Amino acid sequence: MSEKIWRVYLSGEIHTDWRDEIAAGVEAAGLPVRLSAPVTDHEASDDCGVVIMGAESDKVWHDRKGALLNSIRTSTLIEEADIVVVRFGEKYKQWNAAFDAGMAAALGKKLVVMHQPEHAHALKEVCAASSAVVERSEQVVEILRYVIGGTLPKR
Amino acid sequence: MSEKIWRVYLSGEIHTDWRDEIAAGVEAAGLPVRLSAPVTDHEASDDCGVVIMGAESDKVWHDRKGALLNSIRTSTLIEEADIVVVRFGEKYKQWNAAFDAGMAAALGKKLVVMHQPEHAHALKEVCAASSAVVERSEQVVEILRYVIGGTLPKR
Amino acid sequence: MSEKIWRVYLSGEIHTDWRDEIAAGVEAAGLPVRLSAPVTDHEASDDCGVVIMGAESDKVWHDRKGALLNSIRTSTLIEEADIVVVRFGEKYKQWNAAFDAGMAAALGKKLVVMHQPEHAHALKEVCAASSAVVERSEQVVEILRYVIGGTLPKR
Amino acid sequence: MSEKIWRVYLSGEIHTDWRDEIAAGVEAAGLPVRLSAPVTDHEASDDCGVVIMGAESDKVWHDRKGALLNSIRTSTLIEEADIVVVRFGEKYKQWNAAFDAGMAAALGKKLVVMHQPEHAHALKEVCAASSAVVERSEQVVEILRYVIGGTLPKR
Amino acid sequence: MSEKIWRVYLSGEIHTDWRDEIAAGVEAAGLPVRLSAPVTDHEASDDCGVVIMGAESDKVWHDRKGALLNSIRTSTLIEEADIVVVRFGEKYKQWNAAFDAGMAAALGKKLVVMHQPEHAHALKEVCAASSAVVERSEQVVEILRYVIGGTLPKR
Amino acid sequence: MSEKIWRVYLSGEIHTDWRDEIAAGVEAAGLPVRLSAPVTDHEASDDCGVVIMGAESDKVWHDRKGALLNSIRTSTLIEEADIVVVRFGEKYKQWNAAFDAGMAAALGKKLVVMHQPEHAHALKEVCAASSAVVERSEQVVEILRYVIGGTLPKR
Amino acid sequence: MSEKIWRVYLSGEIHTDWRDEIAAGVEAAGLPVRLSAPVTDHEASDDCGVVIMGAESDKVWHDRKGALLNSIRTSTLIEEADIVVVRFGEKYKQWNAAFDAGMAAALGKKLVVMHQPEHAHALKEVCAASSAVVERSEQVVEILRYVIGGTLPKR
Amino acid sequence: MSEKIWRVYLSGEIHTDWRDEIAAGVEAAGLPVRLSAPVTDHEASDDCGVVIMGAESDKVWHDRKGALLNSIRTSTLIEEADIVVVRFGEKYKQWNAAFDAGMAAALGKKLVVMHQPEHAHALKEVCAASSAVVERSEQVVEILRYVIGGTLPKR
Repeated sequence: MSEKIWRVYLSGEIHTDWRDEIAAGVEAAGLPVRLSAPVTDHEASDDCGVVIMGAESDKVWHDRKGALLNSIRTSTLIEEADIVVVRFGEKYKQWNAAFDAGMAAALGKKLVVMHQPEHAHALKEVCAASSAVVERSEQVVEILRYVIGGTLPKR
Repeated sequence: MSEKIWRVYLSGEIHTDWRDEIAAGVEAAGLPVRLSAPVTDHEASDDCGVVIMGAESDKVWHDRKGALLNSIRTSTLIEEADIVVVRFGEKYKQWNAAFDAGMAAALGKKLVVMHQPEHAHALKEVCAASSAVVERSEQVVEILRYVIGGTLPKR
Repeated sequence: MSEKIWRVYLSGEIHTDWRDEIAAGVEAAGLPVRLSAPVTDHEASDDCGVVIMGAESDKVWHDRKGALLNSIRTSTLIEEADIVVVRFGEKYKQWNAAFDAGMAAALGKKLVVMHQPEHAHALKEVCAASSAVVERSEQVVEILRYVIGGTLPKR
Repeated sequence: MSEKIWRVYLSGEIHTDWRDEIAAGVEAAGLPVRLSAPVTDHEASDDCGVVIMGAESDKVWHDRKGALLNSIRTSTLIEEADIVVVRFGEKYKQWNAAFDAGMAAALGKKLVVMHQPEHAHALKEVCAASSAVVERSEQVVEILRYVIGGTLPKR
Repeated sequence: MSEKIWRVYLSGEIHTDWRDEIAAGVEAAGLPVRLSAPVTDHEASDDCGVVIMGAESDKVWHDRKGALLNSIRTSTLIEEADIVVVRFGEKYKQWNAAFDAGMAAALGKKLVVMHQPEHAHALKEVCAASSAVVERSEQVVEILRYVIGGTLPKR
Repeated sequence: MSEKIWRVYLSGEIHTDWRDEIAAGVEAAGLPVRLSAPVTDHEASDDCGVVIMGAESDKVWHDRKGALLNSIRTSTLIEEADIVVVRFGEKYKQWNAAFDAGMAAALGKKLVVMHQPEHAHALKEVCAASSAVVERSEQVVEILRYVIGGTLPKR
Repeated sequence: MSEKIWRVYLSGEIHTDWRDEIAAGVEAAGLPVRLSAPVTDHEASDDCGVVIMGAESDKVWHDRKGALLNSIRTSTLIEEADIVVVRFGEKYKQWNAAFDAGMAAALGKKLVVMHQPEHAHALKEVCAASSAVVERSEQVVEILRYVIGGTLPKR
Repeated sequence: MSEKIWRVYLSGEIHTDWRDEIAAGVEAAGLPVRLSAPVTDHEASDDCGVVIMGAESDKVWHDRKGALLNSIRTSTLIEEADIVVVRFGEKYKQWNAAFDAGMAAALGKKLVVMHQPEHAHALKEVCAASSAVVERSEQVVEILRYVIGGTLPKR
């Protein structure tokens, strides 16, 4: 019978190449996974609303138009994901990452949180709602390989 | 892995060719989109009930039979859509368009509203529930291209 | 045992006193009904957003702020209603009334539509989703009396 | 008939007295509102898990026990709220506030965001999912007074 | 703390006094139960639609108006019931009783079926979805007394 | 883009060849429809439980085992259907048909009822919850052709 | 405003007086809690079905009748609980306790597990779905006091 | 039209080859079934959390990490299954099997229970929530063949 395709949404930090690392790991492992993500072009993500629907003189509405437009993509993909991975990076407030995590938790999605140890206390509520907490991209790939195929890395 | 097909329902005004413009734009852009819509043959839409299930002497029941039959198509397609685009045109009351928008909002669908500027105040409640408000068909295509592929039109 | 209180939301037209008529009829009949409604002060409803959260130079955002604020009240009350009555009057586009009806239908609320005969065709989709279609306020009261107590008007 | 009690959950920042201001304003206005909130005693909130269920040598599990225990309160109260107000303050990462906002949005709760102007861009995704954005506690009281009773502040 | 009130909907046969028997039994046992039921005045139930909303020349629409109006009461009460008791009597097709049972089952309500032994085979699908099958009204009262208070009849 | 396959469940009467007529009509029209149905072998349907899981001396439990086993098929297929067609025939009580209709209605499925005119009054509650009422198999095919493709039969 | 009543269902082991301990603790602390539980009279729980609905010669159906009848109480109370406490005792298989825990988890209820340390490994899946794991009744009371009132025991 | 693929999750006992027997039977019968299961490598299942996410000195957290990680697989597959088969074996407490059964029941999945006769009484609550109770793997295959294709074994 046709194999299940696991849908994995990669939320959060957009200034490092962690999504590429996971994509490469998933491909190398031959996993039946469809990865999705927000638009990671920072400038496009900020300006999409006004570019398509017209300029705003007030920055708040400039931002609102873009955020609403981006939510078409992010909400749809989170709602259809099996697993939502949220990475908290070193910079910015990243409230949208925590917001995505809250949505995923409320929707009953399985949540994987990726962060550096120094943020553990600040992220304790998010992590308490998750099924796994990791630090590195290859751990996400290992999780997907184990969850889908039952195979653990060599010890 | 197999690509996500975005399901987009095009609700509302049926007397101009805006659906064809969007279909042409989607095809030209090569987007993975499945468009759907109500039956846009006005006469068939009005008479479908009595043609298949027998004539009614009272216009109210003539209309009821047709509207119920059409709802099999419209409700099913709205419920399975990712995005519902609702166009408010120049003529008629178009309460069914606003009704579809209300259904889409309550079902958590992402809503895109298309209308001319003079209707902005009358549509403020509908627009407040939407993720985007546009005036022209090509903006819908641009939204789909951005939401699906992250690409903005050249500036 | 304590009696069920029926929650009835009165949506739509705000320029005649139909809500007062229903309230008087409900009280006269001693029905266990809690009526609710949108804010019916037209000016307050239009300006509430900017009065509380600050002025906007652009009318679209002036309207958006107000519509979003009003939606806190309208969505909450529609969601907790047993019955949603929607009245379509003679004036304005009244897209928000049809929008409320669509929300009510999608949420599985029982819908009662009130309108004049000349709008029957334009409202056929809304009426097809309803449990009753009436023309006058006293019919709404008669429906509530029958639905709650099983008593019909004398014939 | 008995009046509706509006349930309002006050999430987020716990180091200023904004909740007391809202409570005082609600009481002064005589509004039918039941306010709820997380445990705002910072130390109790951090240590509740180990105090009741036993010490942990590892800070991560110390935090996990507390966060899980706090989630009994926070999730239950958010799920039964009509309105969730989330305040983002000046200090800390406040990822739990954004997480609560994401939960509220996914559950279809009406969201009110309170923050200072300098955080507008970082909060644009959260604000785009909200029904109102304010800066001060009295605006929350004004919103509740308007939403519940239809009354605006004198201008 | 305040006691739970169990909401029990009594669906089906309307030509014997089984509902009165249950009501008397519940009252005698002092059980915290709120009973509800369809309108059991057969003539009122048939004619309610046309009496309130105007006559129909076609019997099908006469019936449709009445059935839709009755559904406001029946659907609302079934949806808020904890337990739905459906009695199948000796006469008529009673498809509406089986329809109510199907609704109750799909909504996850606890279903109790009352019928005479000769209908067991014809009702096997309905009974398979139920939590109890009985023949007499006093068994319904015994079930409620046991379910609510844990007390069995003397043996 | 790949075409939508409409899933249509054919419930009810099993002693005439109406399902074959619909299947032939659907095939002749080339419609993208996946038909499903209960097991229509009456004897197998009655005895399946005891054949697979062991004999019962009591007919009630013989029936219960079979009905529960059949419900695996029927519930699963009804839950995933877009449209549920229920045919009420001339013989038997057919409470399971009305039960399926109630389940379909509560699950928000679009319901089509097929019956002879003499049953109209007894089926008024079921028909009031439906989107179409027909007498003959070819009308079901015409409905599917219109709903899916917008094409009406020649007049 | 009226205070929230927390509904707490106490599932599992029925041969010790742990429920009484919690009830006494809740009362001593004056907590706004409504406790509920399965029928804890072991013999009544086993025989309820046949006592009310008639004897069965086969033990399997004797048990089935009783289990279905008990499920009216247990499912209803679990579905309306805010918090489900499940105690695993020393004796018996207690699969029904784990079954209740699974239901509670799937319904999004907050789960508290009570067990002795030697069962930790066997209960790891159940505990992973819980918000708190305790050994003694007074810890449940402490949890309720903290969750409801924010008060921790003296240290 | 494309055939429905039935998704069947095989939960419970992992120390005999019952899953292989069902897989072989399904393949021999050519059934359109996609089988899924938890990771059945006992050691991997116990240690997966610490292998991927780092060692724990406390066995409780070692177990918690593993159980949470396994829940990504088990919850996702149970939620998308049509049918959940749960086998209770001879050894261990098997609370996770009963927990899965509770989840499946609450999610409205069709449940098949496999166990030896001596456990009938202890499993009566679980069996009362099921659609079929069997003792042997070939009965599960026979159920799937009947449910999917309507074919019973030769008698």
